[in-house]
Amino acid sequence: MKDIAPLSVYPVPGLPEIRPGDDLAALLARAVAERVGPLESGDVVVVAQKVVSKAEGARVALAEVTPSAFARDFAERWEKDPRLVELVLRESLRIVRMERGVMITETRHGFVCANSGVDLSNTGGSEEGSGARGEGGEIAVLLPEDPDQSAARLREGLGRGAGAGGKDVEVGVIVSDTFGRPWRVGLTQVALGVAGLAPLVDLRDTNDVDGRPLHATIIAMADQLACAADLVCGKTARVPAAVIRGYRPPEGDGQATGISGRELIRDPAMDLFR
Amino acid sequence: MKDIAPLSVYPVPGLPEIRPGDDLAALLARAVAERVGPLESGDVVVVAQKVVSKAEGARVALAEVTPSAFARDFAERWEKDPRLVELVLRESLRIVRMERGVMITETRHGFVCANSGVDLSNTGGSEEGSGARGEGGEIAVLLPEDPDQSAARLREGLGRGAGAGGKDVEVGVIVSDTFGRPWRVGLTQVALGVAGLAPLVDLRDTNDVDGRPLHATIIAMADQLACAADLVCGKTARVPAAVIRGYRPPEGDGQATGISGRELIRDPAMDLFR
Repeated sequence: MKDIAPLSVYPVPGLPEIRPGDDLAALLARAVAERVGPLESGDVVVVAQKVVSKAEGARVALAEVTPSAFARDFAERWEKDPRLVELVLRESLRIVRMERGVMITETRHGFVCANSGVDLSNTGGSEEGSGARGEGGEIAVLLPEDPDQSAARLREGLGRGAGAGGKDVEVGVIVSDTFGRPWRVGLTQVALGVAGLAPLVDLRDTNDVDGRPLHATIIAMADQLACAADLVCGKTARVPAAVIRGYRPPEGDGQATGISGRELIRDPAMDLFR
Repeated sequence: MKDIAPLSVYPVPGLPEIRPGDDLAALLARAVAERVGPLESGDVVVVAQKVVSKAEGARVALAEVTPSAFARDFAERWEKDPRLVELVLRESLRIVRMERGVMITETRHGFVCANSGVDLSNTGGSEEGSGARGEGGEIAVLLPEDPDQSAARLREGLGRGAGAGGKDVEVGVIVSDTFGRPWRVGLTQVALGVAGLAPLVDLRDTNDVDGRPLHATIIAMADQLACAADLVCGKTARVPAAVIRGYRPPEGDGQATGISGRELIRDPAMDLFR
């Protein structure tokens, strides 16, 4: 390798099954220290939404959900669990599409995604109660109430004493989830919550190499950071986080902008597809 | 750093301005050798569409474009160059949205993007002819004719003799571009063309850590690799490529699937948003 320092993405395995009330920042900090080593200021820690929601107790037992007639009707038509359909509706502001059994909704936060982000997989449901995987014991995990707040809390806990020699460091944190998108096959990661880094880079006022002004080129860096993290985080293995080292927002070439994941949500009035 | 080898992303700067007919693979191979070092089998080289198109001569002088009445009308209403609007229409199979001056089209390849991927920025237009930036001298760069073929050609040229000691290596190549998307602010990279790696990872037949089957979880790894590369490629600086080292498609956890970028295009019949 020559003179160029690469950007590096380290997987963070070794987290236990997360339960409501767990101190996720502390558990993550320990796993990072053990598996990656000391953090450095400027590192970006990308954490899967699922473990954040679990720690925050953003979960509902399906047995406690009473589906509406509307939910029962849709569920029956498409062979879905009516309680899950009901939860998806409850978590949504608006239904964007509801066809072929697919529910694409706008969540309370403004995210547009399948099933309002409500998820039955990897929920640790089988470890509740009797340990049996009965229908009645099933747990749905919801999106965090406020992913930016979640990221901010994790940031505080992750930076404290995490540097070499126990120094405090300033890290960025992204709470990420796996969303589908129109037009293209396959899911990619998106940044739900962001703290300690600018989610966007605005190249609008810069010139390209020919001196031509670049119009309307805003790059969703936080989403791209989340995608990079996913390259080392298997969906099925217990790798719920990654550390990205060496990312530097452009200087001079563009303007890092924004402070939250909320700013990655397109204003519905400006969205041709909502 | 502890025992975990990270995934690494190396920027590849140092490419000259690319002209039609240039041997892009050779130029890239030299830049990689000088700035990154020998390639290893399994490395993924992500190359910006713009330099690929330039080398392939996928460019049109605006002076040679005669806009239709339809193009002139739309251009006038939204203060656009009618010749550019005409080119966008020519490069498209279908218009997906045409509102507020924005043209979102389905290209001949099936990509859905703004302006059919036709681009005036960073085109090297000022270096044509007199060197003056006159309207008449402006050059539009189109998407490559067949991005998968472009990637396959680059792959052959990049792997040959590029390893340590001049050995041949098997690399993956992604030809990437910057696309917008509905619902979210900011552009991200997408893989237009893919060679030598599986663009998708299919987790549908695997179980999650609770033993619950994961349905319909197909990850667009090639797009995520392209996003990771963009973290080290400034849009305005001359960094048109990156080398990703240490990416391994999941084994056991899922099934790497597909061989081309074409497979990342959603079947229009299955797309609720086209």
